[in-house]
Amino acid sequence: MADASTLAAEYRDLRRDLHRHPEPAWCEFYTTNRLIEELEGRAIDDLLYGPAIHAADARRNVPDADALTEWRERAREAGASDDVLDTIGDGYTGAVAVVDRGEGPTIALRVDIDALPITEADGDDHHPAAAGFRSGNEGFMHACGHDAHATIGLGVLDSILDSDFSGTFKLVFQPAEETVSGGKPIAESGVLDDVDHFLALHIGLDHPSGEVVAGIDEFLAVRQFEATFAGDSAHAGARPEHGDNAVQAMAAAVQNLYGIPRNSAGGTRVNAGRVGGGTASNIVPEEAFIEGEVRGETTELMEYMWDHAERVLSGAATMHDCEVDVELLGDAPSAHSDAALVDVIDHVARRTAGVDTVVEHDSLGGSEDATYLMQRVQNRGGEAAYVGVGTDHPGGHHTPTFDVREGDIAVGIDLIAGVVTELAADP
Amino acid sequence: MADASTLAAEYRDLRRDLHRHPEPAWCEFYTTNRLIEELEGRAIDDLLYGPAIHAADARRNVPDADALTEWRERAREAGASDDVLDTIGDGYTGAVAVVDRGEGPTIALRVDIDALPITEADGDDHHPAAAGFRSGNEGFMHACGHDAHATIGLGVLDSILDSDFSGTFKLVFQPAEETVSGGKPIAESGVLDDVDHFLALHIGLDHPSGEVVAGIDEFLAVRQFEATFAGDSAHAGARPEHGDNAVQAMAAAVQNLYGIPRNSAGGTRVNAGRVGGGTASNIVPEEAFIEGEVRGETTELMEYMWDHAERVLSGAATMHDCEVDVELLGDAPSAHSDAALVDVIDHVARRTAGVDTVVEHDSLGGSEDATYLMQRVQNRGGEAAYVGVGTDHPGGHHTPTFDVREGDIAVGIDLIAGVVTELAADP
Amino acid sequence: MADASTLAAEYRDLRRDLHRHPEPAWCEFYTTNRLIEELEGRAIDDLLYGPAIHAADARRNVPDADALTEWRERAREAGASDDVLDTIGDGYTGAVAVVDRGEGPTIALRVDIDALPITEADGDDHHPAAAGFRSGNEGFMHACGHDAHATIGLGVLDSILDSDFSGTFKLVFQPAEETVSGGKPIAESGVLDDVDHFLALHIGLDHPSGEVVAGIDEFLAVRQFEATFAGDSAHAGARPEHGDNAVQAMAAAVQNLYGIPRNSAGGTRVNAGRVGGGTASNIVPEEAFIEGEVRGETTELMEYMWDHAERVLSGAATMHDCEVDVELLGDAPSAHSDAALVDVIDHVARRTAGVDTVVEHDSLGGSEDATYLMQRVQNRGGEAAYVGVGTDHPGGHHTPTFDVREGDIAVGIDLIAGVVTELAADP
Amino acid sequence: MADASTLAAEYRDLRRDLHRHPEPAWCEFYTTNRLIEELEGRAIDDLLYGPAIHAADARRNVPDADALTEWRERAREAGASDDVLDTIGDGYTGAVAVVDRGEGPTIALRVDIDALPITEADGDDHHPAAAGFRSGNEGFMHACGHDAHATIGLGVLDSILDSDFSGTFKLVFQPAEETVSGGKPIAESGVLDDVDHFLALHIGLDHPSGEVVAGIDEFLAVRQFEATFAGDSAHAGARPEHGDNAVQAMAAAVQNLYGIPRNSAGGTRVNAGRVGGGTASNIVPEEAFIEGEVRGETTELMEYMWDHAERVLSGAATMHDCEVDVELLGDAPSAHSDAALVDVIDHVARRTAGVDTVVEHDSLGGSEDATYLMQRVQNRGGEAAYVGVGTDHPGGHHTPTFDVREGDIAVGIDLIAGVVTELAADP
Repeated sequence: MADASTLAAEYRDLRRDLHRHPEPAWCEFYTTNRLIEELEGRAIDDLLYGPAIHAADARRNVPDADALTEWRERAREAGASDDVLDTIGDGYTGAVAVVDRGEGPTIALRVDIDALPITEADGDDHHPAAAGFRSGNEGFMHACGHDAHATIGLGVLDSILDSDFSGTFKLVFQPAEETVSGGKPIAESGVLDDVDHFLALHIGLDHPSGEVVAGIDEFLAVRQFEATFAGDSAHAGARPEHGDNAVQAMAAAVQNLYGIPRNSAGGTRVNAGRVGGGTASNIVPEEAFIEGEVRGETTELMEYMWDHAERVLSGAATMHDCEVDVELLGDAPSAHSDAALVDVIDHVARRTAGVDTVVEHDSLGGSEDATYLMQRVQNRGGEAAYVGVGTDHPGGHHTPTFDVREGDIAVGIDLIAGVVTELAADP
Repeated sequence: MADASTLAAEYRDLRRDLHRHPEPAWCEFYTTNRLIEELEGRAIDDLLYGPAIHAADARRNVPDADALTEWRERAREAGASDDVLDTIGDGYTGAVAVVDRGEGPTIALRVDIDALPITEADGDDHHPAAAGFRSGNEGFMHACGHDAHATIGLGVLDSILDSDFSGTFKLVFQPAEETVSGGKPIAESGVLDDVDHFLALHIGLDHPSGEVVAGIDEFLAVRQFEATFAGDSAHAGARPEHGDNAVQAMAAAVQNLYGIPRNSAGGTRVNAGRVGGGTASNIVPEEAFIEGEVRGETTELMEYMWDHAERVLSGAATMHDCEVDVELLGDAPSAHSDAALVDVIDHVARRTAGVDTVVEHDSLGGSEDATYLMQRVQNRGGEAAYVGVGTDHPGGHHTPTFDVREGDIAVGIDLIAGVVTELAADP
Repeated sequence: MADASTLAAEYRDLRRDLHRHPEPAWCEFYTTNRLIEELEGRAIDDLLYGPAIHAADARRNVPDADALTEWRERAREAGASDDVLDTIGDGYTGAVAVVDRGEGPTIALRVDIDALPITEADGDDHHPAAAGFRSGNEGFMHACGHDAHATIGLGVLDSILDSDFSGTFKLVFQPAEETVSGGKPIAESGVLDDVDHFLALHIGLDHPSGEVVAGIDEFLAVRQFEATFAGDSAHAGARPEHGDNAVQAMAAAVQNLYGIPRNSAGGTRVNAGRVGGGTASNIVPEEAFIEGEVRGETTELMEYMWDHAERVLSGAATMHDCEVDVELLGDAPSAHSDAALVDVIDHVARRTAGVDTVVEHDSLGGSEDATYLMQRVQNRGGEAAYVGVGTDHPGGHHTPTFDVREGDIAVGIDLIAGVVTELAADP
Repeated sequence: MADASTLAAEYRDLRRDLHRHPEPAWCEFYTTNRLIEELEGRAIDDLLYGPAIHAADARRNVPDADALTEWRERAREAGASDDVLDTIGDGYTGAVAVVDRGEGPTIALRVDIDALPITEADGDDHHPAAAGFRSGNEGFMHACGHDAHATIGLGVLDSILDSDFSGTFKLVFQPAEETVSGGKPIAESGVLDDVDHFLALHIGLDHPSGEVVAGIDEFLAVRQFEATFAGDSAHAGARPEHGDNAVQAMAAAVQNLYGIPRNSAGGTRVNAGRVGGGTASNIVPEEAFIEGEVRGETTELMEYMWDHAERVLSGAATMHDCEVDVELLGDAPSAHSDAALVDVIDHVARRTAGVDTVVEHDSLGGSEDATYLMQRVQNRGGEAAYVGVGTDHPGGHHTPTFDVREGDIAVGIDLIAGVVTELAADP
């Protein structure tokens, strides 16, 4: 493994402050405010946030007013500015910073900023706990490294500002990646429509410190949904025949969702990830729900799963004389990294300090709504790539003991800044 | 236990001949022919059979042409008359004999004649095997005593012919009881529309030799059906996604049929008694079926079950993109025995030789399409009762070792003949 | 309908205060305290509460410490005494008052005191809302009339104290009836072991004002349980094969619990009344639960259902490589009202003002853990009966618009006091 | 498309004779006898058949004695030799011919010979029907081209006999490929243990006439099974509680087999291809079965599916108090074609008349127990490849209208003979 770089104190403090304030999708109020404060202190040419960077119709999965209010007030108490909160407070989180240095290509970097509903470990062997920057929002945690991503974004911006970069650089802080909801409204807002080279990145992903993946592919297309079954309650002892049992409908749906036929064209997925229903053991359940998802190695495969899932949900409701309402939550297409851009990343990675292994390609195996942004750029003639920056993470992604080696944040900054510089120099 | 009567050789031989030739529902060709021969040798006033005694529209569950042909040819080889077979050969089995002796009430007795698809025991401890009259139609068996019923019917007829009976007596040999299909077409043919007193009977039913049940009640209403699921086949390895899996639909239906909610108004039943589907382990199944039934302690409860079953079958098909076709097979309503008629039976039973215990009422716990005939008579102002004649049966009904004590056939003849005489004497 | 009595202001105020403070099973802290206050102001001979009236081992379904603390603090804020809370505060709610007036039989009355997790209606047509005594514990409601029951209990006590009653009278305020958990520990505490005549009562049950049911029977035996399935979580996109899906196990169990075969020996019930599982749409669910129940018209039928349910839960876990832990919550046997006692009630009811119809027998159709107390008394040679006091209730039991006519509380007091007096006079 | 060769009359007649006599797995008595007759007329050095070419322990899925007898007698009536039938008649079908021409490599070609339980089309647009060689075994059909395969095998043998081939050539006529049962016992018999170059082939597979696939890969490993559930029957109306319902167990298993989690390591399959159970609508089903299979892109993935399937079958039985017996039927591992051998095939194909397109690699997408033979050879240091010979087939494989262009049989002969010659010339 390379003797990795050390992260400058400024970035370390930022990362730890973000880590201490994990916020769920669309509620990244403290985080957005903190990043805006950082950006306002820098010599950038434009700063966009709030409804300006979101196609309002494309937003999905935004929490209800109570949840938004609660997180907004938490952010306010933690010091967020009233003005910023007024602009972003209905779930218009995230920000876009623009550096415009005359002639040259337009290059964008997207980093995501939301956290997860996971309770962070607090043992001494968990570094954030031991070093005093464990989550202050109990039950939520930066368990997927988005605190590191945001920090890398700012570091890359600083490198570019310090350089003789010529062209346009757009830094996108995207909210709501974990619920695959934030990518689409930003894509459809048009803020990236002029981009020639688009980069997104992820830290970790089971790659160790010192390893870089030049181009990540095989994003699973995904669609998330909530199905709500409505029947009729009844006393389970006295009048079971008066009920229309929503839990029976839900259970039949679960059994048959997992049974959607495999597809020879490629991998598919289905999950009834959160389910519930009913009120008490002696009441025939009137309501039940499934919060689930389908995926496919291609967008078509995801659609295949979705067609079947809709039929299963509908048929299950029919069987038990219930109604079912299916609400689409987030989704994301599949996408690929462009070979030419991957070559540049590979080339730059090999000369970046702290990188001792460059893997040309790897598959994500999961989903990511950066794919909406990648597709948007690619459909307009630009190119896109998704980069992996290795780190020795003690726990797996989305687990209570996830953490990143802070030195690898510095490696990430150097790598991406190097790629942007290279692209501007030799567009 | 009473020292039961001995069965006359004539009736014993008839019973054993019928036992040797068990035939399934609507295929009782040998049986019907044999009974017609018996009747033709007696001084009766009318003899009806073939389409004359069946409302053709009401017939259900008639086997396909191949099966009819096979059983018809078997009967022909066993000596059945071509003329009779021509008349009954498309599944118009059974017969009605009429004795018209001037003034007096019209009294009917119904006995059923079909057998079951059960392979008869052949051990030495099974009397029909030991005594040489075991089933000659391998795989089929008189495992519910209908051979005894038919014999009792003929015995009662002889008693009446020998007596000074005044009135009209109708003896109905009903086919297709086991599939609850024969009662309805006979009822709707109108042959019983002038009946004042209607009797049906069953031997055994876990009542020992010497015991009579004057009035059996609590017939479960029943509806039998066959649901056929049609999907699309596909190679299960190469193209699983091209299939619409009829077996998955069927399995989902089975799971949810049994889950139809209990009803506080009374007992219900559901059974997916015979199911199947698919052709080979490597083919996604294109077709599947459920041969099943629902029941209820009242006709309304049966209908409640049926409404739910139809929804389950439809929803299960929807879930797997299949079509489902639901064909009604037999059915039967619930019914009750009239108290006044039960009193007569009770009274006569107490003086009948061989009877030492008279149980006033008992519940059937199963279904019987004699109820169609009972209802038909009752709806026209007549009265009806269903009588139980005990016998020590070694195996349970519908099992390979079922048998009846032949002496109890004689008891049954005496009992019913006594009731008919009493009704005619004191209408 | 009878011109029903008017409820004295004292009892009306008590009933409304209890109605305003509905508390769930084992958390009836305010209620118990209020009733103790009432009892302490009366000339009774003994007052028992806390662990003294509960066989600790037999308590089930007691909420966790957090819930107990929350309800205890609520009661404290509403004015409950610290001393009483110290004694009952770990879920030892309820109380027993004893009147000892020399020679004579020992007669007990049991009334229940807990409320339900139902949000009370607040329309003008809901009397408690219109008259200002709607639930102050949002989400909880006296939707089954236990506020009326407790009031009747105190009214009966007052009548006896005012009378020349000779014998012993025990008034039991039982907690946790709704979760069928409070009856067993009180029965096993032995406080009723010397009882000759035991009475329990219920208001409403679809009987109108002016009607009394002398003896309610056909209690369904019930067993409630919580099954917890534990599997392993995994990322649903990246590593679905690493998961052991607890929601699949739960759904399979639900499907097959409802499919436990009907029983010809009598009515049975099963309900998966509250279910849940999983954490997020993209995580293979690691945990799931079923809060359910089985019932039977006899204790044997309930046990039959339970045997099958245990197999279903175990097999479902096996299918998906999960563990299942099944915790018994409340249960109650079936029971019957003794004819002799029912006769006394019938006799007294016919002379009680406000009663214009007396129904000798009716079936409950549901479950009640008064049956534990009834059985305890009956097993020791005493007799027991369960009385129904009609009331015009606008909404059904366990619905947000349930209410009782307060005049019928007075009828209930007069009826039961009359029965106790009669029993003491003519033991 | 190439102007394909014409098939010599001798081979055309053989192919049509085989097509007229389709026989299922392990019952290829007529076919084997016919091929032995052909071989006996040729100058080969050794001819093996019967138990000599099968490791008896490894045989699976052999039909019962009745089925073997029926097919043996059919073959006898169609002219098969008594001597041959005596040797192969217990399901030891197939044959191995050996040509030994001194120094040189040992090269083997395997062709399969069994047919499918499919009823052949009989329209004028189905060539075998129009030309008079449609299946004479109604309900069975060469719907996968094994008649062509056998013919190619014999044609290749003739070419080699006519050539100056030096080395050893083994021609394997393998039975029971459709049930993936015949490969393993031949592999384990050791007859191929000295083979240096192993070839297997398939015609069609959606590749048109004129196209050759030099190396087919991605065989799905497969395991086929029959699970039999045994419960207890009962009268569905009278005593449903006495039954242990094997159809409920089966349905629960079907629902959950299809729900075995997808695997991120590669494609998997599961199919409950043929199921059944029960005897009549009014009997609680005592027995039920699933004839099914699991597959995986690797042998490990198939094993993963199998582990889960066993758990599902066991848990489903537990749920309904049934026993389950799981019998393994056929199986086959995954395998790959060796690059060096594929290169030779590619090279020869490009110069073979009638071939105008050579596809280097394709995936099978299904399973094939040639993989047992490939693995056996590869594990002993030999190399193996699986070749595709295109043909315009009007209907899909395993459908009633499948057929092959007979000219493509000639192409197949030339191609494989060319490869064998090339391998012998340049080992």
